[in-house]
Amino acid sequence: MKVFEKNIRKVEPYVPGEQPQRKVIKLNTNENPYAPAPGVTKALEEMDTDRLRLYPDPTAAPLVNALADFYHVNPDQVFVGVGSDDVLSMCFLTFFNSEKPIFFPDITYSFYKVWADLYRIPYECQKLDRDFKIVKEDYYKENGGVIFPNPNAPTGLFEELDDVEDIIAHNQDVIVIVDEAYVDFAGRSAMELIDKYDNLIIVQTFSKARSMAGMRIGYAISNSVLIKYLNDVKYSFNSYTMNQTSLVCGVETLKDKAYFEECVNKIIETREWAKEELKNLGFHCLDSKSNFIFAMHPDYDAKELFEALKENDIYVRFWGSERIEQYMRISVGTKEEMEAMFAFLKEYMSR
Amino acid sequence: MKVFEKNIRKVEPYVPGEQPQRKVIKLNTNENPYAPAPGVTKALEEMDTDRLRLYPDPTAAPLVNALADFYHVNPDQVFVGVGSDDVLSMCFLTFFNSEKPIFFPDITYSFYKVWADLYRIPYECQKLDRDFKIVKEDYYKENGGVIFPNPNAPTGLFEELDDVEDIIAHNQDVIVIVDEAYVDFAGRSAMELIDKYDNLIIVQTFSKARSMAGMRIGYAISNSVLIKYLNDVKYSFNSYTMNQTSLVCGVETLKDKAYFEECVNKIIETREWAKEELKNLGFHCLDSKSNFIFAMHPDYDAKELFEALKENDIYVRFWGSERIEQYMRISVGTKEEMEAMFAFLKEYMSR
Repeated sequence: MKVFEKNIRKVEPYVPGEQPQRKVIKLNTNENPYAPAPGVTKALEEMDTDRLRLYPDPTAAPLVNALADFYHVNPDQVFVGVGSDDVLSMCFLTFFNSEKPIFFPDITYSFYKVWADLYRIPYECQKLDRDFKIVKEDYYKENGGVIFPNPNAPTGLFEELDDVEDIIAHNQDVIVIVDEAYVDFAGRSAMELIDKYDNLIIVQTFSKARSMAGMRIGYAISNSVLIKYLNDVKYSFNSYTMNQTSLVCGVETLKDKAYFEECVNKIIETREWAKEELKNLGFHCLDSKSNFIFAMHPDYDAKELFEALKENDIYVRFWGSERIEQYMRISVGTKEEMEAMFAFLKEYMSR
Repeated sequence: MKVFEKNIRKVEPYVPGEQPQRKVIKLNTNENPYAPAPGVTKALEEMDTDRLRLYPDPTAAPLVNALADFYHVNPDQVFVGVGSDDVLSMCFLTFFNSEKPIFFPDITYSFYKVWADLYRIPYECQKLDRDFKIVKEDYYKENGGVIFPNPNAPTGLFEELDDVEDIIAHNQDVIVIVDEAYVDFAGRSAMELIDKYDNLIIVQTFSKARSMAGMRIGYAISNSVLIKYLNDVKYSFNSYTMNQTSLVCGVETLKDKAYFEECVNKIIETREWAKEELKNLGFHCLDSKSNFIFAMHPDYDAKELFEALKENDIYVRFWGSERIEQYMRISVGTKEEMEAMFAFLKEYMSR
């Protein structure tokens, strides 16, 4: 080993869900099966490309203002980043500086551990119960901050607002982050609590309900005090992160509320139908309120099923990790994509 | 103060160069005065917007391949990020993990200190000499890594390849990063040394010579071993950073080498002429090989001059910090923009 290699940071690289370049039925990374709002195409066609030679607005004002309008908050209550991963990472760095451990569920979004390790934040996972629900009393203990997704991933389970509020109310001396990447498919957002609790941050994304995973746009909504702390940290080490096209496309997407609701409703309808179909095939499905379904079959090994699907160009997600060895996560595609998957499953199970 | 505020990271927010929204003569953030390659407009017009609903390729393969072609290296020798700030920050995190201080010049790009602080990397600034040149012998001492821009910012001074190689050769037990954001305006890149020294990383950007500050694209070129370390760290905590439009626009920009060279040559020509003009007005100019000029006037206070220019909608950069209190940095605009600045300066100095 070269001398210089001893001071290089060595990590276990994360393996993201596969992004096959050829045409497959892609139900593995919770993308939206419907195209972005039609206005996005027009906005790119009409883009002032001379503007690209200049740095983007470091405050991302057009997008921040559009989000503030959409959610009826002030612009100083909005923070934007390069996908919610960037926003969440910045929140960890800014708000989780206690010596006490932060709390999050044992089965949840895998990056929470990664950012905690990266920023040397102590953490303690709280076990979901046997039905994969959050046990709110576990979050009453002293801690350095709390984060959980609602709906949770990869279970898809949604905690009602009362339960979310109970966790926030019991943790008013620390920051509580509710990661609502999938909330538009679920129910009431905790955003309505931001005036009531000054320790609350809501994080959402354009990647799921808004069909814009390819543009990398995430945001946090909170009170102006916490948003200022977040912006100060962000500006202190990287001023320009949102590129000009993401600002323009993000604004355009927010304009078309009707299209957004139409796509979300179609996905919810397909999800509910698909849950029934899975049950008819003997699957055990969690009652997902997200754009994916977490399911297992008592008679078929999840890994074998996952691989059989993949061989037939149907990509779903499988981890094989503790407590979820027998589960697959199936993103909700179009009705046609789901029908193709069911046709295969029926054929496979009749072999 | 709320209890939760004591665990919030508090920083001195960085103040980026102003980005005025109205039309001014903007010579303050080293942007390119010429539009991106014409192919970029066409690529955005023809963008497959349905593709935006999917996550971008996490390996950024199309852009990585195009850069590999352009620089005649293998794709596994190329790393890309959201502007060179993102690339440099990732390099600090990955390569500077020694207990010994890293070295960089005392007058240089201000973010080196910021990233060192962020990642708790010890550092020691090496003083530029009285002519603002790097003293290469200062970098012979034991250290935890070396980074310097070439040409340096905000001086614009370029160190010849022999001197750069001398620093690399004296530091083969640590990683040496040469930050070549402005090298296309200067001379020979140290990229030709990457096969000779396995501790060398070259960082460049699309923001300056390629007219794409608004798209946030930076890259590192090195050997495949160091690039793999960098990618492992990046994937470990944020898999998808380059959005789809930046991949497409980046590839398109690289295709048009003739346009790129034409713009660079025009800027060099304007710079050389502007240096003469400034000297004729009594300014002392460093011999910049970049797309900006670092200049001072023995008879006029830099801050007053900076403000007088600004009042007349001509934006240049001024810091007022130690050793450079009397200097302004003037980005090289179009000949017409520079003429307008000179017309104002002549009028101002004749008052």
